Amino acid sequence: MNNFIEYKSAVADYINQINFKKEPKELYEPIGYIANLGGKRLRPLLTLFAAEVFGAQPTDAIHAAVAIELFHNFSLIHDDIMDEAPLRRGNKTVHEKWNLNTGILSGDAMLILAYQYFENYEPAIFKDLAKLFSKTALEVCEGQQLDINFETRNNVSIPEYIKMIEYKTAVLVGAALEMGAIVAKTTENNKIAIYNFGRDLGIAFQLQDDYLDAFGETATFGKQIGGDILENKKTYLYLRSLENASATDKTELLNWFLSKEGGQEKIEAVKSLFEKTNATNDTQLLIEEYTQKALLQLETLEIPYHFKEELKEFALSLMSRTV
Amino acid sequence: MNNFIEYKSAVADYINQINFKKEPKELYEPIGYIANLGGKRLRPLLTLFAAEVFGAQPTDAIHAAVAIELFHNFSLIHDDIMDEAPLRRGNKTVHEKWNLNTGILSGDAMLILAYQYFENYEPAIFKDLAKLFSKTALEVCEGQQLDINFETRNNVSIPEYIKMIEYKTAVLVGAALEMGAIVAKTTENNKIAIYNFGRDLGIAFQLQDDYLDAFGETATFGKQIGGDILENKKTYLYLRSLENASATDKTELLNWFLSKEGGQEKIEAVKSLFEKTNATNDTQLLIEEYTQKALLQLETLEIPYHFKEELKEFALSLMSRTV
Repeated sequence: MNNFIEYKSAVADYINQINFKKEPKELYEPIGYIANLGGKRLRPLLTLFAAEVFGAQPTDAIHAAVAIELFHNFSLIHDDIMDEAPLRRGNKTVHEKWNLNTGILSGDAMLILAYQYFENYEPAIFKDLAKLFSKTALEVCEGQQLDINFETRNNVSIPEYIKMIEYKTAVLVGAALEMGAIVAKTTENNKIAIYNFGRDLGIAFQLQDDYLDAFGETATFGKQIGGDILENKKTYLYLRSLENASATDKTELLNWFLSKEGGQEKIEAVKSLFEKTNATNDTQLLIEEYTQKALLQLETLEIPYHFKEELKEFALSLMSRTV
Repeated sequence: MNNFIEYKSAVADYINQINFKKEPKELYEPIGYIANLGGKRLRPLLTLFAAEVFGAQPTDAIHAAVAIELFHNFSLIHDDIMDEAPLRRGNKTVHEKWNLNTGILSGDAMLILAYQYFENYEPAIFKDLAKLFSKTALEVCEGQQLDINFETRNNVSIPEYIKMIEYKTAVLVGAALEMGAIVAKTTENNKIAIYNFGRDLGIAFQLQDDYLDAFGETATFGKQIGGDILENKKTYLYLRSLENASATDKTELLNWFLSKEGGQEKIEAVKSLFEKTNATNDTQLLIEEYTQKALLQLETLEIPYHFKEELKEFALSLMSRTV
């Protein structure tokens, strides 16, 4: 796992040397701003990792890795507008720091810039990368639309919720890994397996994010605990709790979710209901299920054994995080 | 020129058969809505024309042609948000008919969809098309940003204005033609010449659009005459008029552009100033200059003579329009 530190600095170096000081500066400054806010940069790291796993030089995949990260940042700019979010990674969001129009237009330009990074590859690889990228980007848009729809829908089913997080979050994890595989020109079977590994791990990761939002430790998780509860987010915890609850508990939970008032009292009450209805436990079981589903994909990979171990180690480390 | 009717119906047929009834419908309905508002559809027609000129079947270029048209429609959705425009082609704009978030997200999806149409081509052609597309799309964003900047700037120079319309409008005309050339696998020289022809014609076209906005006939132009004047748009007419004007006329023109009040009286007064300062005449000379510059490119094309004549005929018909 030592390589992860190298991957991370390779990605940071590459992003640092991109010239965002282009004209018109009103267009490019916000792009440089969001790209340099940092964040975990998990996705580009996975692209480099996959390239190595399938026998290429990790740095061969750096352009694709950066394209994925720029796309992710584009989606944050536009999502933050839609969610009216004031902060991103502790800093002002682009539309807050500048304005709505800057957020829209810089986001558009950033999406196009992402495509341009694939131009560093020969035509056959370029086409495979851009095709996977477009498919994935469209699914991310669909996931965002589903998420918006859920805000005003009262009959969201659990399969619908899983589909939403799969599209909004998990497919990009799968694609990040598959891009490394494409650059390494590995077999179709390997490409499919690593994509599925990433997608299932992405679902587990998002479910865990939901879980930690309610039950994580403030100090380490870095966000306000209970934020989703205060925002009445229809997470898996909530949907499962509703499904498991007795009539009385269900009424209480629905009542809490009628308004965004209630503060700490609401958070505690809702968390108690999540526990009481076994939703907490069920969420952990589902995280485990998707993690196992992901790990199962590793068995079908045609790669050296030690890489399978490293991928497994990575998956388990991700799932044992408390942050 | 008879083929233009065929091209037009080929584009219409293709767009008609696209399935926009996909889920989530909140994402895809607005895309289908704007794509089916019609408009002149000049750009896709040029792609098919160029393909034929360089020896391919025009229909071979249909996917690229539709990508260009979808991109153009994407840019309209996002531009209309930025301009707070209520109407587009006589119908409600997407953000008015739905809402801001739908406008942003459907626009994003439409940009990605445009890229997907290039997937119908083999890798080498795909890469050439996508590369030209990304470069052009980024320039269109830059042009839109310059246009936004000009609204609040009082020292816009004429070269800056020309650069803005080149990026915002003309490069897409050049790219539409070059894409036909790429599909037809013609020479590099032909590709460059047809792109330049389209770009220069695009500049002439936009200058004429500005001219017709002030001096066109209401009945045929289809927009309110004087709209740009009421909006204090810094068009070539305005900038040239300022440059040519005596101190008194300059003060009068600047005064009219201090507010958006004044209605018909303002339109008449400003038009008089445009005439008096010779800006009207200078604009027509510049349109002529860019048209001639475009036609000069035709001489370097290695194509059958009758196609040069047809391209010339097309350019002149475009420039003699009153609508």
